[in-house]
Amino acid sequence: MTVYDIVKSRLKEIPHNEKLLSLKYESLDYDNSENQLFLEEERRMSHMGFRCLEIRRWVICGLIGFLTGLIACLIDIAVEELAGYKYSAVKQNIEKFTEFGGLSISLILWAALNSAFVMVGAIAVAFFEPIAAGSGIPQIKCYLNGVKIPCVVRLKTLAIKVFGVICSVAGGLAVGKEGPMIHSGAVVAAGVSQGRSTSLKKDFKIFEYFRRDTEKRDFVSAGAAAGVSAAFGAPVGGVLFSLEEGASFWNQMLTWRIFFASMISTFTLNFFLSIYHGKPGELSSPGLINFGLELTLEYIPFESFLFFPYYFPGGMLGALFNVINYWLTIFRIRYIHRPCLQVMEAMLVAAVTATVAFAMIYFSNDCQPLGQDSTEEYPLQLFCADGEYNSMATAFFNTPERSVRSLFHNPPGSYNPLTLGVFTLVYFVLAVWTYGLTVSAGVFIPSLLIGAAWGRLFGILLSTITSSQSIWADPGKYALIGAAAQLGGIVRMTLSLTVIMVEATGNVTYGFPIMLVLMTAKIVGDYFIEGLYDIHIKLQSVPFLHWDAPPTSHWLTAREVMSSPVTCFNRVERVGRIVDVLSNTSTNHNGFPVVAHTTENEEPGKICGLILRSQLIVLLKHKVFVERASSRLSQRRLQLKDFRDAYPRFPPIQSIHVSQDERECMMDLNEFMNPTPYTVPQETSLPRVFKLFRALGLRHLVVVDDENRVVGLVTRKDLARYHLGKDGLEELQLAQT
Amino acid sequence: MTVYDIVKSRLKEIPHNEKLLSLKYESLDYDNSENQLFLEEERRMSHMGFRCLEIRRWVICGLIGFLTGLIACLIDIAVEELAGYKYSAVKQNIEKFTEFGGLSISLILWAALNSAFVMVGAIAVAFFEPIAAGSGIPQIKCYLNGVKIPCVVRLKTLAIKVFGVICSVAGGLAVGKEGPMIHSGAVVAAGVSQGRSTSLKKDFKIFEYFRRDTEKRDFVSAGAAAGVSAAFGAPVGGVLFSLEEGASFWNQMLTWRIFFASMISTFTLNFFLSIYHGKPGELSSPGLINFGLELTLEYIPFESFLFFPYYFPGGMLGALFNVINYWLTIFRIRYIHRPCLQVMEAMLVAAVTATVAFAMIYFSNDCQPLGQDSTEEYPLQLFCADGEYNSMATAFFNTPERSVRSLFHNPPGSYNPLTLGVFTLVYFVLAVWTYGLTVSAGVFIPSLLIGAAWGRLFGILLSTITSSQSIWADPGKYALIGAAAQLGGIVRMTLSLTVIMVEATGNVTYGFPIMLVLMTAKIVGDYFIEGLYDIHIKLQSVPFLHWDAPPTSHWLTAREVMSSPVTCFNRVERVGRIVDVLSNTSTNHNGFPVVAHTTENEEPGKICGLILRSQLIVLLKHKVFVERASSRLSQRRLQLKDFRDAYPRFPPIQSIHVSQDERECMMDLNEFMNPTPYTVPQETSLPRVFKLFRALGLRHLVVVDDENRVVGLVTRKDLARYHLGKDGLEELQLAQT
Repeated sequence: MTVYDIVKSRLKEIPHNEKLLSLKYESLDYDNSENQLFLEEERRMSHMGFRCLEIRRWVICGLIGFLTGLIACLIDIAVEELAGYKYSAVKQNIEKFTEFGGLSISLILWAALNSAFVMVGAIAVAFFEPIAAGSGIPQIKCYLNGVKIPCVVRLKTLAIKVFGVICSVAGGLAVGKEGPMIHSGAVVAAGVSQGRSTSLKKDFKIFEYFRRDTEKRDFVSAGAAAGVSAAFGAPVGGVLFSLEEGASFWNQMLTWRIFFASMISTFTLNFFLSIYHGKPGELSSPGLINFGLELTLEYIPFESFLFFPYYFPGGMLGALFNVINYWLTIFRIRYIHRPCLQVMEAMLVAAVTATVAFAMIYFSNDCQPLGQDSTEEYPLQLFCADGEYNSMATAFFNTPERSVRSLFHNPPGSYNPLTLGVFTLVYFVLAVWTYGLTVSAGVFIPSLLIGAAWGRLFGILLSTITSSQSIWADPGKYALIGAAAQLGGIVRMTLSLTVIMVEATGNVTYGFPIMLVLMTAKIVGDYFIEGLYDIHIKLQSVPFLHWDAPPTSHWLTAREVMSSPVTCFNRVERVGRIVDVLSNTSTNHNGFPVVAHTTENEEPGKICGLILRSQLIVLLKHKVFVERASSRLSQRRLQLKDFRDAYPRFPPIQSIHVSQDERECMMDLNEFMNPTPYTVPQETSLPRVFKLFRALGLRHLVVVDDENRVVGLVTRKDLARYHLGKDGLEELQLAQT
Repeated sequence: MTVYDIVKSRLKEIPHNEKLLSLKYESLDYDNSENQLFLEEERRMSHMGFRCLEIRRWVICGLIGFLTGLIACLIDIAVEELAGYKYSAVKQNIEKFTEFGGLSISLILWAALNSAFVMVGAIAVAFFEPIAAGSGIPQIKCYLNGVKIPCVVRLKTLAIKVFGVICSVAGGLAVGKEGPMIHSGAVVAAGVSQGRSTSLKKDFKIFEYFRRDTEKRDFVSAGAAAGVSAAFGAPVGGVLFSLEEGASFWNQMLTWRIFFASMISTFTLNFFLSIYHGKPGELSSPGLINFGLELTLEYIPFESFLFFPYYFPGGMLGALFNVINYWLTIFRIRYIHRPCLQVMEAMLVAAVTATVAFAMIYFSNDCQPLGQDSTEEYPLQLFCADGEYNSMATAFFNTPERSVRSLFHNPPGSYNPLTLGVFTLVYFVLAVWTYGLTVSAGVFIPSLLIGAAWGRLFGILLSTITSSQSIWADPGKYALIGAAAQLGGIVRMTLSLTVIMVEATGNVTYGFPIMLVLMTAKIVGDYFIEGLYDIHIKLQSVPFLHWDAPPTSHWLTAREVMSSPVTCFNRVERVGRIVDVLSNTSTNHNGFPVVAHTTENEEPGKICGLILRSQLIVLLKHKVFVERASSRLSQRRLQLKDFRDAYPRFPPIQSIHVSQDERECMMDLNEFMNPTPYTVPQETSLPRVFKLFRALGLRHLVVVDDENRVVGLVTRKDLARYHLGKDGLEELQLAQT
């Protein structure tokens, strides 16, 4: 606890970003604007039309799954090839110098190769698309939660992400390629479902119906699920991940489609990898990592109680990881924000990783006999006798996925306790340092690896103590449970992680101990600090909405949380006023209640509807003004298509030129506003407002008095401001960061 | 298609119950009434208080899981013992008479035993608790959907259900004991979470906070999940079942708790069964049925495309099952509604089942050698040579669970095609006839059995055609896929069923073909008729809300669907008027908007709140009148506890005596009404109203005009009325059935 206290007191001195809510994040709108245009379109559509839409949704989900699987396959093959080349080169070099001395040249070669790979990846990320850094899971969580993170689902982001992750894994960093798959799947989904790419300026003119936040979100859920599915071979886990992170409303057909996308994704990956491995049809690699079908160790659930000693270290080590990483992230935010510095830090980490690994291998003298059925890809003999290999090298001189599998599967006695202990410590430090670098990389695999190492260590110690050659003697299952504990302690996912672990294991019977481990890890970890993703979301000051309002927030009512006064428009409003309001950068509102007969500076009017900035922009762009329409008979009537074409990148108001004459025109909003926005009375308690807002995925909620007059507007930031701190309800400050 | 057309034309002549909505079903209210009392209580509660509540929720979920597991265990042991006794007796008898002739005596013994068991079960159900009939899944679906089915979660129902299911399975009917577990789990949950049993008049004075629909629903979800988990050893499947059927809002902690209950449930069952089987600690039976850990048949997913021929029969045979059962159910509703008739029909079916089974065994001459590792519990030699057994008997002379396992696991060649063909046909007829009898029984196992039989038949034929001794030769996996297809075709569940099947199999790799099979079965089946549970829900005229409003319902607005005029109360209302309104049996409203200053027959008042019948009843019972309060200073202030004590069985208005003097008193509703009910404007489209209603689990939704005056009230029946028929949107009639 002392270390923790020191770290904590130290943290207090650093300004707390996480006590702020950034104003730069906008909300997504999961409530359809049911204006006249929309209703007319829906009413025109026949039953058959809806069927066709449904079929199109299935086709899109199939495509999402297929493309996500392909991308996973591409990443896997690229990493295999590059890492294979790298390790072969270094291995030859080491073998050459082992006898004659001069291994420092090998070290330099290794470190240089690593740094080179990482440099290329880091440059791509830091200079071209910083949002592609990290695992992308916090960003996707935010997107599914309803926060618009700029550029998060663009094609460019996908390209950089895929390239970056290949570089960082091939560069030997303590990272995994699994987390980024989730982000990749989401981008694929966002792209495919819109039938166009704005980056490439290519519009296929298909799937236009789906060009709105509501529909897009559903597909992005499917994409994220397909990503999880491809990463871990866990289609059900993928669905649960999407639901756990994103869904506010469960719909049977939607879930079923998401599952379909997941299944296609893992199947595609499996199929193409089987061809790559030269055994077409033998579908044995359903995910980027799978813990191996061989993991059919005899399992006795009673032992799950003996697993108990680990439940606590999992949570505590996870919390420790998060605390250190939190500290480091604050440091990075303050001092390492220039791209060149970021690239240099990444290269430094790569070089240090190689050096440490080399030193560990060099000084370890843990030699193991090279069995016939060894799964080692690059067994390093180094100073071992012929027919033996260096066991430290199996952990370091390898891609992390392989190391995890070795820890699960290698027969008892493959590692000695000291090796594992030192490895755990070193890898822990490296992984903490690595997460948050400006490279594309996931934290799943390093977490699993740390956990598997100390888990196996524990198993070995246990079997030494009991000194029986019975079932206890197999440390592989302890490695599995340790991996689950460590990962759970870091990311704090619940049901979805349990299912992912079970699916990756391929063995249903491990469900019970894995659940217990994850549950304890979450409880213990939450006592100290939040999960890693939540920390990073908070440090970005994202207005993230949790499941419920803080329990002690019944004191607050809509009156206290709402923003007021509200800028309203009349049903028929002067163009000049609209332009002025939209151009006002100090307020930058995005939704405007439309009221009956109001003039400025008077008492508020009765609510008639709600119109969005994006809608007004389109109206201004097409100059849908009342006077003009009467003068020019050829005026094209605005259609939903015009709004869809502009979605999602509506031009800024500054780009729209409105002449002085036009400013005096009027604009009739009746047809375009949503005439039935959701409203709440002023006395509504915060939890009630929260529930309505969250369940329906709203962006704006109008607060009215008992005469139905607009008195305020509740947006995401008004709700996300309140959260439960250590000393009760706290209020975050809004800031223009 | 001809048979189908005949059946269909025949059906048209029978009056269609499913075109009605019964008025007898009330809604549950998943929206907290946030009145002053409630808000005061919530505000008084500290952060610690909420933590304690959370812990209590976990404890309750643990208890639910434990008790559900115990009940499953009890059912399993009772069925094993009784069936064991029965089959031993019959077997001895048959063996005695085989040589000398006179097997008709054996037949009579068998039929009599079966009928006796079934009679006892049917009497319990028909005379004491008719709601305990069937699998209970339609009822739980309705409960989770928000419909209050009378008596569905009472202790008495549980007792009858458990007793009934033991009798019907022991009585040899073509039924399973799995479906009823879901109902049992739900009842356990409803009981435990309330900390009392109204049937037993026992109040433990604990968990009082949870005495409202919102909280109770969450626990019932957990109970249903625990039931699935115990039935199939499928904890994740259980969670998904609950969510697929019930949840309108997904909450991470809730899901996690449900999963905890499921895990505890399967673990408890497994543990106690292992003791019963004399191998404590060897946890090999996680569910009432599991397809066996031995099912590690080598699986090649490419074969899943070869499974394709079955995808269609599954859906079609399922649809055929449903059509016949639908027809039969209508027949039963019309002609067999007296309890004695129901008991007699059940006995008849039992006797016929025994007779048919006997005849089949008798005339079959499919003898198989009795292997060393045979899993047969009661191998019948009959006319076979020594060391052989009658293979038809393995299918009939056995509990259905064992028969399913035999079909999955017995080595190739255990059955000849003719046996399987005849068995499929006969069992199909028996199962259709049986479902809907007045006995507690599930349809899962018979469906699996039918599917497994024709699946295995298909496998055998395929291997005969290809005549290879390769991997194709194992018909067990074809049986598995056939079982999935048949079950999917009947019940039409999607994701949850896939996961249940995978968990019951214990083998993750079967996920892909099972998903494809279930998907096809659903699409094909839905073309003909709905799923079995939906048919029964419709035939009960239950106002069930589906996921979305019918797609073509954008034409309708709240104005058209709402009920109006609405009976409103003033904020301070005369007791006499309240009593009169509540006593009016012709309207029987349950929710009343509270308005400011209105008198009858005038224009509607502005909405101030909403009060429920149940709240008014409690107020009347405690005589919370304004005049009285001022005269009697000792008057106890009404607390939330008073409402909770009366929950959920509020007394009828007739039981409350209000004197003539008291009728003139006034009642102040301000403190008790929900001051912030959700409202929508009249122009809101039906899909939008539907979404709000369904997402928040509302019972009453007030429709207001632009002055905030009450113009109508939307309830569940107003929304459930609209559904998509073959010829577009149809409207069901309300009826006092």
